[in-house]
Amino acid sequence: MAGLLRSEGRSGAKFAAAISAEFFGVLFFALIGAAASYKNFAIANGLALAVLVYATANVSGGHLNPAVTVAALATGHVSVLRGLSYIAAQIGGAIAASALHLALLPKAAAVGCSGPGGGATLGQAIVWELLLTAVLVTVVYAVAIGDKNFAGPAAIGITLAAAALTALPYTGAALNPARTLGPAIVFGCGAGSVRTTLLYVLAQLLGGLAAGAASWPLYGIGPHFGKWG
Amino acid sequence: MAGLLRSEGRSGAKFAAAISAEFFGVLFFALIGAAASYKNFAIANGLALAVLVYATANVSGGHLNPAVTVAALATGHVSVLRGLSYIAAQIGGAIAASALHLALLPKAAAVGCSGPGGGATLGQAIVWELLLTAVLVTVVYAVAIGDKNFAGPAAIGITLAAAALTALPYTGAALNPARTLGPAIVFGCGAGSVRTTLLYVLAQLLGGLAAGAASWPLYGIGPHFGKWG
Amino acid sequence: MAGLLRSEGRSGAKFAAAISAEFFGVLFFALIGAAASYKNFAIANGLALAVLVYATANVSGGHLNPAVTVAALATGHVSVLRGLSYIAAQIGGAIAASALHLALLPKAAAVGCSGPGGGATLGQAIVWELLLTAVLVTVVYAVAIGDKNFAGPAAIGITLAAAALTALPYTGAALNPARTLGPAIVFGCGAGSVRTTLLYVLAQLLGGLAAGAASWPLYGIGPHFGKWG
Amino acid sequence: MAGLLRSEGRSGAKFAAAISAEFFGVLFFALIGAAASYKNFAIANGLALAVLVYATANVSGGHLNPAVTVAALATGHVSVLRGLSYIAAQIGGAIAASALHLALLPKAAAVGCSGPGGGATLGQAIVWELLLTAVLVTVVYAVAIGDKNFAGPAAIGITLAAAALTALPYTGAALNPARTLGPAIVFGCGAGSVRTTLLYVLAQLLGGLAAGAASWPLYGIGPHFGKWG
Repeated sequence: MAGLLRSEGRSGAKFAAAISAEFFGVLFFALIGAAASYKNFAIANGLALAVLVYATANVSGGHLNPAVTVAALATGHVSVLRGLSYIAAQIGGAIAASALHLALLPKAAAVGCSGPGGGATLGQAIVWELLLTAVLVTVVYAVAIGDKNFAGPAAIGITLAAAALTALPYTGAALNPARTLGPAIVFGCGAGSVRTTLLYVLAQLLGGLAAGAASWPLYGIGPHFGKWG
Repeated sequence: MAGLLRSEGRSGAKFAAAISAEFFGVLFFALIGAAASYKNFAIANGLALAVLVYATANVSGGHLNPAVTVAALATGHVSVLRGLSYIAAQIGGAIAASALHLALLPKAAAVGCSGPGGGATLGQAIVWELLLTAVLVTVVYAVAIGDKNFAGPAAIGITLAAAALTALPYTGAALNPARTLGPAIVFGCGAGSVRTTLLYVLAQLLGGLAAGAASWPLYGIGPHFGKWG
Repeated sequence: MAGLLRSEGRSGAKFAAAISAEFFGVLFFALIGAAASYKNFAIANGLALAVLVYATANVSGGHLNPAVTVAALATGHVSVLRGLSYIAAQIGGAIAASALHLALLPKAAAVGCSGPGGGATLGQAIVWELLLTAVLVTVVYAVAIGDKNFAGPAAIGITLAAAALTALPYTGAALNPARTLGPAIVFGCGAGSVRTTLLYVLAQLLGGLAAGAASWPLYGIGPHFGKWG
Repeated sequence: MAGLLRSEGRSGAKFAAAISAEFFGVLFFALIGAAASYKNFAIANGLALAVLVYATANVSGGHLNPAVTVAALATGHVSVLRGLSYIAAQIGGAIAASALHLALLPKAAAVGCSGPGGGATLGQAIVWELLLTAVLVTVVYAVAIGDKNFAGPAAIGITLAAAALTALPYTGAALNPARTLGPAIVFGCGAGSVRTTLLYVLAQLLGGLAAGAASWPLYGIGPHFGKWG
C-alpha cells in the first residue's frame, strides 16, 4: 500500500512521530504475535502484522521489521539516519513487548523465541528464514508502489501468515530480526541461543537485502512511493 | 475506510438512521460474536465486526464500540449529543443481543461474559484490555482517513481477530464496553462481575482515549473524514 | 462492490450471460460449499461465496441468492423478468450442484441439507436464518454503492463465514433459499424436510425483504449502482 | 487485479524479468504451499498464491499456473513465445521448489504429490480438478479487468483456499499443472503416478481452457488489461 517505505516528512515532529510509530508498531505486533498459542501463531502473527502496518503506514511507512528497513536503506528509500533510527526503535519495541509479556502473562514463560525445531537442523532453519524473509520483503516492495493500495498491509500480513503456517514447526517463523532479538535479549532463550540468534538475524537481513536487490531493477531507486489517503 | 467516524448528516432522518445503525450494528455483531464457540470465537468476532462496520459505515460511521465513540468525542469528530446517543444505542444493542441469545440458543447459557481466565489476574486482564482496545481504536483512526479505503472495515475486524486469538483465554477479548456490559446486565455473569465489569469498561474507555490522544497530533482534530461511495 | 445488483445490459446476449452467471455461480458456490467437511464448512462457504461473487459481479451483479434477488426486486434494482429468471437460474444451479455431488463424492451422501441441530428447535433455527439472512443482504446493499469497491465480494463472503461460524450447529447456516432447496430436491433430506425446507425458504426470503426495506430509505430505490472495472 | 494477464513490456529486460517472476513466483508458492501440513494445506496454499500474485502481478501478470497461461494464450492475452516461456518457467520453478524441499525439510519426504484420496476414484478426482481449475481461471479473468483492483490477487488466492478446503482429501487440490508436475518429476510420487499426473495435467489445462472460452465473450479477446500502480 501507498505510504509504505516512504521517507517524506523530515520535520522534527514528523520524524519523532515516525520513530514512535515504529517503536509502538513493533511493540504491539510482538505483544499480540509472540503471546499467541502455537495453534493460533501463524494467523495471529499475520493478522497482527497487517493491522499494525495499517496503523503505522501513514506515519512511518510501516516497516516494523529491520529486514525491511535494511532493504529500504540499500535501495535509497530511507536516509541512513532514519533507517538506523527505525531499526533501533524496532528492536526497542520488541524488547518492550517481551518485558510486557513477563508482566502480563500468567506464567512468565519465554514466548517468541526463535530457533530450529521439528527435526530441522540450524542450517535448514536459517535457509528457510532467509528465503521467507526475502518473500516478505519482496511483497512489501510490490505493494508499496502507487497510491491507495489499501490491500497492501493485508498482503504483507498474509505473507507472514502463509510462511508461518508452513515454517513455524521448523524455524519459529520470525522473519524479522527484531522479533528474534527481543525475546533472546529478555528471556535468554536457552543454550545455544546466542549463536542461533545471530545466525537468524544475519539470514533475515540477507533475505531482506536479496529482496531489495531483486526489486531495485523493477521499481527503481530512491523515494517515489505514494501517500495513502 | 472512509465514512468511518464522520459526523455529517445532521438532519433528523439521517440522525435517526445513524442511531439505528449503531443499535442494530452492535446487536448483530454481538448476536453472531458472543454466541460463537470458544474455538471459533476470535475469527467469528473479527469477521462479524468487519461486516457490521461495512454495513453501517456510510450510515453512522460504523463506531459500534463506546471506546471508539469516546475517542471520537475527545478528538472532536462527533458532537456530544451524537456521541452520547451512539453510546446509548450501542449498549442497548448489546443488551438486546443478549436477550435474543436467551430466546435463540438451545441452552440459554450466559454467553459473552467478560472476565479474566487462563490463570491471569484481574489486573493482568484489564491491562490487556486497555492495550488491545488502544490498538483497535488506533486502527480505526488510521483507516478512517481519506476516501474509498474499502479495506478499512476489514482492517478493523482483523484487529479484533488478532487480539482475540491471543487474549481470549486471558480476558475474554471484548475490547468494547458494550460487549462487556450487555451480557453482564442480562446474565449477571456470576460473583465479582460488577467489579470486573466496571474495571473492564474503564480500561476499555482509557484504551480508546489513549488511542485518540496518540492519533490527534497525527490526523488533527474535528470532522474531516471522507465519504465512502 | 460495484457491479452488484446492477440491472444494466438488457441486450439479449448480455441477459443470457447474466442468467448463465447466476446458474454457474450458484452451481460452483454450492459444489464447493456444500461438500466441505463440517470443520471447514463456515470458512469454505464464505470464501466460495466471495470468489463466485467476484467472478459474476460484472456479468449478473453477483446475486447468487434468491433472498438477494427478492430484495432487489422489491427495491426496484432488477426488473420482474430478470428477477424471476435469476431465481430460477439460482435454484437450477443448486440442483445441478447436488446432482454433481452424487457423481463426484466417494459416498453419495446427502450434503448441504438445511435443518435445525445442536438442540435448537425448528422455531429457533428459522429465526436465526431470518436474522442472519437479513445481515447478509444488508451487507450486499451497503457494499454495492459506488464504483470500484473491490472489497465488496469479500465482505459478502465473510458475512456468510461469520454467520456460519456461529450458526452452523443450530441451523446448517444456509442463508440462501437456493442452497436450502437444491439438496432438499435432490436428496430428500429425510423426514420432516418438506416443512423444514418451506419454513427455511420463507424465513430467508423474509430476511432478505427486511434488509431491502431497511436499506431502501438509506440508498434510495431503483438502479443506480456503479460498474466495476 | 490490474496487471494480471497483461502482455506489455516486450523489451528484452522486461521480458527476462517477467520470466524470472514466473519462475521465482511458482518456486516460492510451491516452497510454502507444498510443505504445509495437511491441516494447514488449504489456507497456506491459498494465502501463498495470493501473496506471490501480489509480488509478481506488475512484473509478469502473475499467472503462476500453466492453466492460466494456456487460457491467456487461447484468448490472445499473451504471445506464443511469452506463453510457452511462462509455462517452462512455471514448471521449472515447481521442480526447483521440490528440490529445495529435499534439502530443507527434516524428512525429505515427497510433499505436494497429486492424486485421488479419501475414497474418490481417479475419474472423480480429475473431474474435480477440471471444474475447480475452471473456477480458479474464471476468477483470474474476472479480477484482471480494469485498473487498481488491489483485491484481485487476494480473490485468486482465496479461490484456491476455498477449493482446497473441500477437495483436498479427494484430489490433493493442485489446480495447477506445475504444482502437479514438480513433485511428480522430483519425487516420482509412487505407483501409477505417471498416468495420474498426465490425467491431472490434462484436466487442469482443459479447465483453464473452458474458463478462457467462457470469459472470452464477456471480456473480449487480446491485451486490454490495465496496469497496477
